[in-house]
Amino acid sequence: MHLTLDAYSADKESLANKELIRNFLDNLPELIGMKKLAQAQVFEYDGEGNKEDWGYSGFVVITTSHVSIHTYPEKGYFAADVFSCSFFDYKKILSQFKKTFNFKTYEHQVIRRGLKFKRNV
Amino acid sequence: MHLTLDAYSADKESLANKELIRNFLDNLPELIGMKKLAQAQVFEYDGEGNKEDWGYSGFVVITTSHVSIHTYPEKGYFAADVFSCSFFDYKKILSQFKKTFNFKTYEHQVIRRGLKFKRNV
Repeated sequence: MHLTLDAYSADKESLANKELIRNFLDNLPELIGMKKLAQAQVFEYDGEGNKEDWGYSGFVVITTSHVSIHTYPEKGYFAADVFSCSFFDYKKILSQFKKTFNFKTYEHQVIRRGLKFKRNV
Repeated sequence: MHLTLDAYSADKESLANKELIRNFLDNLPELIGMKKLAQAQVFEYDGEGNKEDWGYSGFVVITTSHVSIHTYPEKGYFAADVFSCSFFDYKKILSQFKKTFNFKTYEHQVIRRGLKFKRNV
């Protein structure tokens, strides 16, 4: 199961807050019953000549899963992914993102994939 | 643009080779004209009681993008993602994955997302 989330008109201050992003990624797995393999990491992107495109890219690896986010504070946009071989409550995840980044307009997709693969759990 | 790849009957030795996975992730961005924000990282998952589910989770963060992989060596399966706000040659990426992990059966999806977002480049 794979959730993609593209949010517009999100809160600029939150998208530009490295610690908030790191804490969000660090705490999200537990909220949805998943276990981290490592601490979340957040990297800065300077926009490479396009200052308006600067932002943070964050990642947390969970057992057989991951959560990622790429933020564009100047444009109020972010793109996030939650991927897992297991089922998860994507509405709960969406509401956590919403609570933290306070966006109004968004698109999300729930993608079924790897359907021929059988996990033991 | 987002490429998802779910590959079955992949080469067990490659899926179980941490250094190979790390090198693959480290080299892929350049092959497709993307720039890394940090070195690739690979974490081991022990299967949590299901030994057959052990594997590696790796990712590399690229400018506004990422590549991730979750491998299940005992089952010959892996799930990978290549996500970017920019266009990329997904067929070239598929062939790189194929060359390295030598799978026959696979599913892939090319997902258009964040269409309302306008990047400067």
